[in-house]
Amino acid sequence: MIKVGIIGSTGYAGQELVRLLLQHKEAEIIWYGSRSYIDKKYYEVYQNMFQLVTAKCMDDNIEELANQADLIFTATPQGFCASLMNDNILSNTKIIDLSADYRIKDVDIYEDWYGIEHKSPEYLNEAVYGLCEINRELIKNARLIANPGCYPTCTILSIYPLLKEGIISGDSLIIDAKSGTSGAGRGARVNNLYCEVNENIKAYGVASHRHTPEIEEQLGYAAGKSINVIFTPHLVPMNRGILITAYGNLEKKVSYKEVKEIYNSYYGNEEFIRILDEDVFPETRWVEGSNYTDINFKLDPRTNRIIIMGAMDNLVKGAAGQAVQNMNLMFGLKENEGLNLVPMFP
Amino acid sequence: MIKVGIIGSTGYAGQELVRLLLQHKEAEIIWYGSRSYIDKKYYEVYQNMFQLVTAKCMDDNIEELANQADLIFTATPQGFCASLMNDNILSNTKIIDLSADYRIKDVDIYEDWYGIEHKSPEYLNEAVYGLCEINRELIKNARLIANPGCYPTCTILSIYPLLKEGIISGDSLIIDAKSGTSGAGRGARVNNLYCEVNENIKAYGVASHRHTPEIEEQLGYAAGKSINVIFTPHLVPMNRGILITAYGNLEKKVSYKEVKEIYNSYYGNEEFIRILDEDVFPETRWVEGSNYTDINFKLDPRTNRIIIMGAMDNLVKGAAGQAVQNMNLMFGLKENEGLNLVPMFP
Amino acid sequence: MIKVGIIGSTGYAGQELVRLLLQHKEAEIIWYGSRSYIDKKYYEVYQNMFQLVTAKCMDDNIEELANQADLIFTATPQGFCASLMNDNILSNTKIIDLSADYRIKDVDIYEDWYGIEHKSPEYLNEAVYGLCEINRELIKNARLIANPGCYPTCTILSIYPLLKEGIISGDSLIIDAKSGTSGAGRGARVNNLYCEVNENIKAYGVASHRHTPEIEEQLGYAAGKSINVIFTPHLVPMNRGILITAYGNLEKKVSYKEVKEIYNSYYGNEEFIRILDEDVFPETRWVEGSNYTDINFKLDPRTNRIIIMGAMDNLVKGAAGQAVQNMNLMFGLKENEGLNLVPMFP
Amino acid sequence: MIKVGIIGSTGYAGQELVRLLLQHKEAEIIWYGSRSYIDKKYYEVYQNMFQLVTAKCMDDNIEELANQADLIFTATPQGFCASLMNDNILSNTKIIDLSADYRIKDVDIYEDWYGIEHKSPEYLNEAVYGLCEINRELIKNARLIANPGCYPTCTILSIYPLLKEGIISGDSLIIDAKSGTSGAGRGARVNNLYCEVNENIKAYGVASHRHTPEIEEQLGYAAGKSINVIFTPHLVPMNRGILITAYGNLEKKVSYKEVKEIYNSYYGNEEFIRILDEDVFPETRWVEGSNYTDINFKLDPRTNRIIIMGAMDNLVKGAAGQAVQNMNLMFGLKENEGLNLVPMFP
Repeated sequence: MIKVGIIGSTGYAGQELVRLLLQHKEAEIIWYGSRSYIDKKYYEVYQNMFQLVTAKCMDDNIEELANQADLIFTATPQGFCASLMNDNILSNTKIIDLSADYRIKDVDIYEDWYGIEHKSPEYLNEAVYGLCEINRELIKNARLIANPGCYPTCTILSIYPLLKEGIISGDSLIIDAKSGTSGAGRGARVNNLYCEVNENIKAYGVASHRHTPEIEEQLGYAAGKSINVIFTPHLVPMNRGILITAYGNLEKKVSYKEVKEIYNSYYGNEEFIRILDEDVFPETRWVEGSNYTDINFKLDPRTNRIIIMGAMDNLVKGAAGQAVQNMNLMFGLKENEGLNLVPMFP
Repeated sequence: MIKVGIIGSTGYAGQELVRLLLQHKEAEIIWYGSRSYIDKKYYEVYQNMFQLVTAKCMDDNIEELANQADLIFTATPQGFCASLMNDNILSNTKIIDLSADYRIKDVDIYEDWYGIEHKSPEYLNEAVYGLCEINRELIKNARLIANPGCYPTCTILSIYPLLKEGIISGDSLIIDAKSGTSGAGRGARVNNLYCEVNENIKAYGVASHRHTPEIEEQLGYAAGKSINVIFTPHLVPMNRGILITAYGNLEKKVSYKEVKEIYNSYYGNEEFIRILDEDVFPETRWVEGSNYTDINFKLDPRTNRIIIMGAMDNLVKGAAGQAVQNMNLMFGLKENEGLNLVPMFP
Repeated sequence: MIKVGIIGSTGYAGQELVRLLLQHKEAEIIWYGSRSYIDKKYYEVYQNMFQLVTAKCMDDNIEELANQADLIFTATPQGFCASLMNDNILSNTKIIDLSADYRIKDVDIYEDWYGIEHKSPEYLNEAVYGLCEINRELIKNARLIANPGCYPTCTILSIYPLLKEGIISGDSLIIDAKSGTSGAGRGARVNNLYCEVNENIKAYGVASHRHTPEIEEQLGYAAGKSINVIFTPHLVPMNRGILITAYGNLEKKVSYKEVKEIYNSYYGNEEFIRILDEDVFPETRWVEGSNYTDINFKLDPRTNRIIIMGAMDNLVKGAAGQAVQNMNLMFGLKENEGLNLVPMFP
Repeated sequence: MIKVGIIGSTGYAGQELVRLLLQHKEAEIIWYGSRSYIDKKYYEVYQNMFQLVTAKCMDDNIEELANQADLIFTATPQGFCASLMNDNILSNTKIIDLSADYRIKDVDIYEDWYGIEHKSPEYLNEAVYGLCEINRELIKNARLIANPGCYPTCTILSIYPLLKEGIISGDSLIIDAKSGTSGAGRGARVNNLYCEVNENIKAYGVASHRHTPEIEEQLGYAAGKSINVIFTPHLVPMNRGILITAYGNLEKKVSYKEVKEIYNSYYGNEEFIRILDEDVFPETRWVEGSNYTDINFKLDPRTNRIIIMGAMDNLVKGAAGQAVQNMNLMFGLKENEGLNLVPMFP
């Protein structure tokens, strides 16, 4: 039984970790960290956990937790994890960081886009970008995982094979993304009130969203060179789900069948990636509550472009689910342990 | 042209007042009061007002405003209006208070249910409860109007005729109410975040909601004696709308036609009250954006009870619309000026 | 491994059965019946099942299915199951009927409220009303289960102990219920279109809903005499969830503690019923996706009444989840097999 | 008083026409055409119109209606209007067709994308594309108006000035559009049920939506040559509103100020087009219920592209509102008569 601690367990991603881990056979939560709710019963913060979790919220003493836990999930604000990391912690436990602190290898880019100083850049090199389907072998031996962002996970998984195979041009990429509101977190802000989000759609972070450099770095690896993309997220009046609609210029003449075969060759054996049937396009409702990413594409000969779509639950594959998948890989468990969740509809 | 000031113009009710008054031919807003946003352009707080309102938000100096305005709307937290009221203000201007400060005649009941001291109980007697269809003549000559609460407006209008005519027993009344989320205001609270309200229904203020004594007082006038009712509000994942479903024991044997005739005799000439056809029940979507209250009832001979339903837009007839209707009455304008709004669907 | 067939597998309740059974270790679906989609791949009707279900939809030949299956779930329109039932089927298999056909013992009441002739009243006596927490022992030995309606499940579980203990008067009961829209089924009707349901709340079936006699019969058993109640359902703009708010006259003076103890004595050992802490009231979001019913109450000394609230996922405990719970009981499995689902929020 | 008839008055666009015309001082509806509801009272189809409309629904006898009405709005399925048009009608009345029949000048393109034969191509030349801000003078003298599609209106208004001024390349255009569900109409289809649309986002009509050629034709006029664009609509769980996010390659180096000045020079005097302040981006909630189109842009020097956004109420400026605006122009009324509606929020 893996002993697990969560720092930041009362945010939406943290709570989703609790949901998944309670249904996981090989892991046990020993520490529900939450600076805001110390000493409050966890179920009083999330009544769905009534009679399922009896523990109280604890502080974020990561040093002490590192002594007790085999693994720590940090679902904390940007900068928090990096500010505490040290050799002692990493020699005592493993870390899966759900924040952005170790996702971007170039510390200047991180500091530029996030507007904060990185307090432990010495671990950037060691940290593994935990996109399981791409970096599986590296993850297995890692001590420190940078759990990918929600938008980047959906974007990279959807586009990676086509860039890697030279089908599309990296610099032509335009990613128009749409997310449910849980991605905005549980902070009490006017912009996230029910009446402000409901019956509305808007773009935000236009030409400036922090997930842009994360996407560019990872897709740059696929392209074999650095690339610049446009990434425009939109806020959708729904709880969960991310849909990305990406547009790329074709670098060569390809048929539907050829592109399909590329996807199959990359993902044919992947349990959590589903390449849909021809002309069936991803919808967030079909993955809700599960760890799946649904992907499909459409060639547009009129404009010599391809339209690529991916759908995912932002709290599962986009956060807590992928974190558990990383845990499973790091501890040699079945990769899908605790994750064979049938999407819940409606 | 009536010169109007609004104190609390950046809450949802305040903003709805702005929407209605911009479409009103005889009134002009000269003061957009908002303690939280002083000196900010009003349209930056509500972008729907871009190019419609150029004014900046102002403070809540009610003394100064009383010198400039013919009428002041106070859409402010409980206690605010009462704490500032004095003879000087009332001799210079008229007041329509959208808070609860002057709704309840018995100051002990007010202080008990609201948990605050009433700072100007000397005006309770003068203040007129601004339920237009019931107190029309009193309103015409008032200086100080207590604009009714949203739930009380819908409840009292729906039930009043039957109590007055002795059809139902006052103490048997159970009012199960449902409201959209704009009723909870624009304050940044976790409980009102999109993800907390969406896909959920809950009761709140069970056996303790502050609108209970307001309902009891007004329905007590109809019954001719003091009564105790159960009032249970619920929060519905929608922006606007209140539906009340009320249950009462029949005091005498009545037919559908007899009850219908009672309603017709009270409301047959009322523009803003619509008694629906038999077996067509009120739905909030059919009144959205308008000043209507839709009412209907169903006799249940199996249990010797009557079920009464009323639907209303909580921000219009339940707040800003009724406030404008009161203004029209106080200034001798057409009662429906600025209020002949066709409900917007969908 | 129990071989299971589902007739009506492409309705919302049928699909929820599929979701639950795919995660059940002791059952295997061998027949996805769906008259409307014969020969279509099941996942083409519900894309969440892509790569999880490869079977095609089949007809509703219940005689043939009875030969192959250990258990048949019928999630079919009223009258269908009763029209096909015979001794041969019941000697070959077990039946859990999710329709209303065998819920009401008095065939006249059934025919009166449902407006159709009952084609096999001879099985009414044998059929067990499958409310697991109340009829557990009878269910274990049943061949034919009448799976309770969604509203009745939530209502009866919430009120049963208080009636049984004589705390409240049966004839005083008023049940004001609210349901998500999945309860209305997947039929293509204008009334259930997105734009008609969204941003609206309405009552329906006022004083005439078919779940009324089902509630009255079962609560009558608790009261020890026949009772008449008011039951008013409302349609809420959300996918899942039922909340009932019930009002009853107190028959004796009781304290919070006494009522709490009654609930504990009935449900203290029930895994799927959670009596909440004092003044914490049920909300549908906290049970979504799970088999829980959350219950609480509030005494109102001002009116000498009690307010009882219950929340449930209408598709799980209100339909498919309870059906699986019944299956587990009938086949001697762990009662919670396949049902220890953590509620999913948000 | 202009006598107006509506054929197709019980669809969402038809009903919105009724809402707007009831608040219009110079027009009177004399014919509520609805093939599906002949002889039914109009308010029984739309209860918001109770006591506002007493008329019954009538057939679609356009010849007879042409004798009675000064103007006919056809809010009918594709092909209907074209199949009935003749000289007699056009000599007796004016027509504003809300369908696509006369929007596309090239009959082959129409027949190809719509899959139906055009029954009166002889009127294509005469018909004026009723995008008021672009074709104002032509509209004033027209007998037959092709009222633009919802997506095309929002797209063309947002992009037109930049194409016309040679700022962006036409063939580089990618339009990622998002619409509320009222755009899908009131037909009873499973795909538009509440539970299917709610908590979901999806693309549809990928690389094949019928509004593509309409956009291409109109933007081609701006570009001065034929262009091919990608247009991808998405369905958003909300009632009203369209947001387009468009991406174009810059043809020259431009500053924020230069682009802003272009927009100002085209739209500075337009009442219904609002160019927002820098870095304030359009959101559908801020235009709901009104005839406004809110537009803004963001230069992205990293990729040498521009991101253009536009928001609109699909039922107002995208359908009925623009139709009324066209009527006002055709009859020499104030262009904003009946249209100075303050957007309703929340």
